[in-house]
Amino acid sequence: MRRKAARDLRSFAVTLHPNKYAEGSVLIEAGETKVLCTATIDERVPPFLKGQGKGWITAEYSMLPRATQQRNQRESIKGKPTGRTMEIQRLIGRALRSVVSLEALGERTITIDCDVLQADGGTRTTSITGGFLALALAIHKLSGTVTFNKYPLTDFLASVSVGVFHNEVVLDLNYEEDSKAKVDMNVVMTGSGTFVEVQGTGEDSPFSRSELDGMLGLAEEGILKLVEWQKETLGEAGVRIGGGTK
Amino acid sequence: MRRKAARDLRSFAVTLHPNKYAEGSVLIEAGETKVLCTATIDERVPPFLKGQGKGWITAEYSMLPRATQQRNQRESIKGKPTGRTMEIQRLIGRALRSVVSLEALGERTITIDCDVLQADGGTRTTSITGGFLALALAIHKLSGTVTFNKYPLTDFLASVSVGVFHNEVVLDLNYEEDSKAKVDMNVVMTGSGTFVEVQGTGEDSPFSRSELDGMLGLAEEGILKLVEWQKETLGEAGVRIGGGTK
Amino acid sequence: MRRKAARDLRSFAVTLHPNKYAEGSVLIEAGETKVLCTATIDERVPPFLKGQGKGWITAEYSMLPRATQQRNQRESIKGKPTGRTMEIQRLIGRALRSVVSLEALGERTITIDCDVLQADGGTRTTSITGGFLALALAIHKLSGTVTFNKYPLTDFLASVSVGVFHNEVVLDLNYEEDSKAKVDMNVVMTGSGTFVEVQGTGEDSPFSRSELDGMLGLAEEGILKLVEWQKETLGEAGVRIGGGTK
Amino acid sequence: MRRKAARDLRSFAVTLHPNKYAEGSVLIEAGETKVLCTATIDERVPPFLKGQGKGWITAEYSMLPRATQQRNQRESIKGKPTGRTMEIQRLIGRALRSVVSLEALGERTITIDCDVLQADGGTRTTSITGGFLALALAIHKLSGTVTFNKYPLTDFLASVSVGVFHNEVVLDLNYEEDSKAKVDMNVVMTGSGTFVEVQGTGEDSPFSRSELDGMLGLAEEGILKLVEWQKETLGEAGVRIGGGTK
Amino acid sequence: MRRKAARDLRSFAVTLHPNKYAEGSVLIEAGETKVLCTATIDERVPPFLKGQGKGWITAEYSMLPRATQQRNQRESIKGKPTGRTMEIQRLIGRALRSVVSLEALGERTITIDCDVLQADGGTRTTSITGGFLALALAIHKLSGTVTFNKYPLTDFLASVSVGVFHNEVVLDLNYEEDSKAKVDMNVVMTGSGTFVEVQGTGEDSPFSRSELDGMLGLAEEGILKLVEWQKETLGEAGVRIGGGTK
Amino acid sequence: MRRKAARDLRSFAVTLHPNKYAEGSVLIEAGETKVLCTATIDERVPPFLKGQGKGWITAEYSMLPRATQQRNQRESIKGKPTGRTMEIQRLIGRALRSVVSLEALGERTITIDCDVLQADGGTRTTSITGGFLALALAIHKLSGTVTFNKYPLTDFLASVSVGVFHNEVVLDLNYEEDSKAKVDMNVVMTGSGTFVEVQGTGEDSPFSRSELDGMLGLAEEGILKLVEWQKETLGEAGVRIGGGTK
Repeated sequence: MRRKAARDLRSFAVTLHPNKYAEGSVLIEAGETKVLCTATIDERVPPFLKGQGKGWITAEYSMLPRATQQRNQRESIKGKPTGRTMEIQRLIGRALRSVVSLEALGERTITIDCDVLQADGGTRTTSITGGFLALALAIHKLSGTVTFNKYPLTDFLASVSVGVFHNEVVLDLNYEEDSKAKVDMNVVMTGSGTFVEVQGTGEDSPFSRSELDGMLGLAEEGILKLVEWQKETLGEAGVRIGGGTK
Repeated sequence: MRRKAARDLRSFAVTLHPNKYAEGSVLIEAGETKVLCTATIDERVPPFLKGQGKGWITAEYSMLPRATQQRNQRESIKGKPTGRTMEIQRLIGRALRSVVSLEALGERTITIDCDVLQADGGTRTTSITGGFLALALAIHKLSGTVTFNKYPLTDFLASVSVGVFHNEVVLDLNYEEDSKAKVDMNVVMTGSGTFVEVQGTGEDSPFSRSELDGMLGLAEEGILKLVEWQKETLGEAGVRIGGGTK
Repeated sequence: MRRKAARDLRSFAVTLHPNKYAEGSVLIEAGETKVLCTATIDERVPPFLKGQGKGWITAEYSMLPRATQQRNQRESIKGKPTGRTMEIQRLIGRALRSVVSLEALGERTITIDCDVLQADGGTRTTSITGGFLALALAIHKLSGTVTFNKYPLTDFLASVSVGVFHNEVVLDLNYEEDSKAKVDMNVVMTGSGTFVEVQGTGEDSPFSRSELDGMLGLAEEGILKLVEWQKETLGEAGVRIGGGTK
Repeated sequence: MRRKAARDLRSFAVTLHPNKYAEGSVLIEAGETKVLCTATIDERVPPFLKGQGKGWITAEYSMLPRATQQRNQRESIKGKPTGRTMEIQRLIGRALRSVVSLEALGERTITIDCDVLQADGGTRTTSITGGFLALALAIHKLSGTVTFNKYPLTDFLASVSVGVFHNEVVLDLNYEEDSKAKVDMNVVMTGSGTFVEVQGTGEDSPFSRSELDGMLGLAEEGILKLVEWQKETLGEAGVRIGGGTK
Repeated sequence: MRRKAARDLRSFAVTLHPNKYAEGSVLIEAGETKVLCTATIDERVPPFLKGQGKGWITAEYSMLPRATQQRNQRESIKGKPTGRTMEIQRLIGRALRSVVSLEALGERTITIDCDVLQADGGTRTTSITGGFLALALAIHKLSGTVTFNKYPLTDFLASVSVGVFHNEVVLDLNYEEDSKAKVDMNVVMTGSGTFVEVQGTGEDSPFSRSELDGMLGLAEEGILKLVEWQKETLGEAGVRIGGGTK
Repeated sequence: MRRKAARDLRSFAVTLHPNKYAEGSVLIEAGETKVLCTATIDERVPPFLKGQGKGWITAEYSMLPRATQQRNQRESIKGKPTGRTMEIQRLIGRALRSVVSLEALGERTITIDCDVLQADGGTRTTSITGGFLALALAIHKLSGTVTFNKYPLTDFLASVSVGVFHNEVVLDLNYEEDSKAKVDMNVVMTGSGTFVEVQGTGEDSPFSRSELDGMLGLAEEGILKLVEWQKETLGEAGVRIGGGTK
């Protein structure tokens, strides 16, 4: 298959409402990576938040055993999520909370489940971009029955990976590129262009400040495109965010 | 939604090859129940079979947390599969092994993963019917590179549930019917019309011999229809089973 | 040892009250299979039943490590009950609940522990037949201190295995027969002759409808004999069930 | 029930060979305490002993859930043996190894399972006394097929508890006495009168050197009686230990 | 390094308050063995003590992975504390409770954490001797804010190991001596000279009554020296125990 | 206590060789944070590296239960390391591997254990800075017995945290500052000034590109000071790295 240019995003697609039970759900595809994201609203909060009038957003992430080229053992059989899984779901949860006013949400929890049906690089960033859509759908649905003083969703949010591959800064790597890249960086930004997470790792080969600057710039470009696409997608679904919505 | 007649199957659909990595894969839908079945071939056998020249077929079953009306906790967080999950995956494995010649397969293991994306009754029977298709695709693919003395797949296999609901024997119950039915019975049969598993439970209300006979007859009818549909589906995909295939 | 005829039960024996602490207890022997069944009454119910005025019956099943020809590892060391154990104890619990009015029992739980001291086939069916006796003794004892509006035990209950061995339908198989049988079927029935569970498995060799009918008939005969023997056993112990008891 | 005198042992009884599969087995009763002890011979040793020409003796201990006045949760459900269980089975294993020549035994493992059917104090000491008998039966059986250069069992071994109860030193306490005793001490000795284990605990009330001396003396008396009884029991079963046996 | 005489203690040292957060803490050294002991006060009691007006003392023990010559796997990775760890921490807890009036303490829990930084024999006895000091510091600190009717600490407490090494009774063994000793005995005593725990094991070689008497005598001598040293240490820190303190 | 200026490091100290068994060990202090780092050399590699002629560096991280203001439950009792622990130890391992030539190391594993005795912010960055020292000591020791073709340690490595606190970019935050900072960023760099890891999180308040640039610059300054100090420390211990060493 012909590859995209280094500064381009992979082709994106989304199916809204693939799950008939969830309060919000999307099936998001980035290249050959496919993630099913569902949002579940629970009218309770975890013990550490009880009685504070605040809500909570949490995420869980998992890969189906054959989402990858080689089958992986299920985490239920290992007896616990792996370190990688925990790291990723903590990241998704933190990222999504950065664009939610927990006070405005009130004492309820929204759980975003990101289940990777097929993995071809960028599963954590795609989970954030898709998880945001599921969250937005769920809060929109909730706004039909609950009157918020302030709309709980405060901004858009998207994420993309970026790396240095064959001495070139490359956006949105697939699995093959990612496994050969010198640096692997994941960036999460809001729709207003501020950073929520910057995670860059150069285990096999440390990177210079100018490479870092190049990656940050390219990630910013890519994320702003994703946010535009999110706005269109949600707009067509009748969901607007922020100021004038309610 | 208007319900089907008591003696009818729910509407069935299948997507072949939804996963680009697995040796065989189908997305099967029975009414609103959706199960992703993948088959993985591993050129090894479990320790208890080593050196016997025989292969193995095993199955794993899981529901995504929001496959159901209420979200369920992930089994990786509980630390182990539940009793229900283990019971179901043992059933799927036994059922599939009944139509495979393990000697003909040779020293390799095929793992059938059945991941329920959406559950609306009959997830274990749908997993068997769909798992058979994924298995058939994988063995067909394998037959392109391996020469078998005898084709390892010896028959078709399908499964359906049947119950007594409002004093009527009903085929292929959805979740709502199942939760109100007096008896819950799952039947697995081969394409030649012999029984592989019969599991009937009347916890809330024991059932008579004549009710049992009625359920067995209706299940047989339904399974033979499913097998016809499997034959068409695989035939269109260029897969034939048994005698003349190779 | 000379084997019984194909249509006969193995020799049965029971020791009442082998345990001085339990509210009800029996040591049941079926051929060389020996199971210690104890019933424990707890004046609480599981969380999902709280405040509904209903009781609960649950069962646990375990084999001592050397109950079998080869020693098995303890499940406490494996870290969890096996799939087989969970499947069996779920079966025993469901079966016993089918002859108890949970409303009549009131908000209390009876736990039936079935510990296999020696296993020679039919441990799950023997656990049900013996577990019923322990349960009946416990409810009888309870009726000495609690006044029930309605007697909680509504019927007798017994279970037996049946299979096809050397092309003959055989009742109550021992381990050696069971491991060579073409079909393995467990049947649970009430004293009034209705079915509570029917579980037949033909992993190695599927079975025909006429074989199934033959097995069901023979199981019915065997279970009715077991129920007669239960009636005598409990009658001698001064325990009567149902209508006139209280 | 009339209690024994302070310096007496409780009534003892043993049933030889209660289990038809185990290489050695006894059901031992000390007062109302009943322990089923089985010995399993395995022709392998644990990894840390491989290739050293030495054998291994290990023990496992467990209580049935209703062995006690209040039902205890199964350790398989807790997910692991409790600290108490591990402490006891380590003690039993150490004690039994002290009278076995592991070199003489050769590269095989004997596992002693001590399953408490009913507990009324002294379950660990009774497990040692009974476990020794099961071990002796198993080694005797093994000596029928294996020629030992030296008989692996080098001495008799028994154990008893002793305590200070109402300011009196008391031998072989039952549960009620034990729970009220000021000191709880378990002593293990060989048939030649040497100490293998001395474990005394005065959590609620420390004890003086003269109380300690009194307890040690009484334990010694009790254990020597138990050893006499073991000699008779094994002698009647045709088992002799040590020098002249082979 | 020149070894101490058989009847001597190894050199002892203590650093008070090595941890700035704990209510009491010491770093104790016995020879090359180093244990960090911290005491944490929690104004709650375990469920089994709720509402009884009594407090609780509990202990946890752990070795850093490289506290020993060979690195040990962390217990968090094994998934549970080992049997040895549980045995030791139960011992430490029991020992410390023997010199605390739980009624006087009131409804609060003190947890003593004993983390072995370097192990060279005697880690459990050193943990008791050091744990006592951390406990005394914590109760002293607590007495600054809480008025006790009776001072909760009722006596001093120390512990030492003793063994038979080269046919000589030896006090306070290091790792090398311990691993070659014929008997391994741990003794815990109060400042008033009564025994709290006596645990002697002669797995490889049973011991005689006179050896036992020799060990008990030597342990008593050693412990009384340790108690003297504890009195000085606490006295210099301004902590007095018992009668006149408050 | 008077706080350092925003652009300063906290006071640093190190004790070399605090552990007599480990191949390399340091006790590192950064402000009030104290971490014991030990390096263990094992002449084996994990299964995935067998036979490739390459070595491995891995890290484990843990906090003593009372390293923090509130006592934390031990991970051995929780049954597994927390997500935070796994995230941190994966980071430490990746960081250290970036300055080691695994080919030059040969088929052996070095495990760096970082045990936090007292935590006051920056435990993960301090573990990397101290872990590097323990690793350097271990490789230096190894170079006394093994002849390397190329010295396995290829560069220095240190790490520091940086954040935005009261609208000012601040270096090396303690716990109180960290918990109030708007951004929390950890940076790992080599002695040659290239980045190994950049991890910035703005959960509560996203950060701008200019804030990010300010933090990266300050981190770089701090890390280069730490590397100077590492050079002096190792130089005084007779350890030189790279080119001319052997």
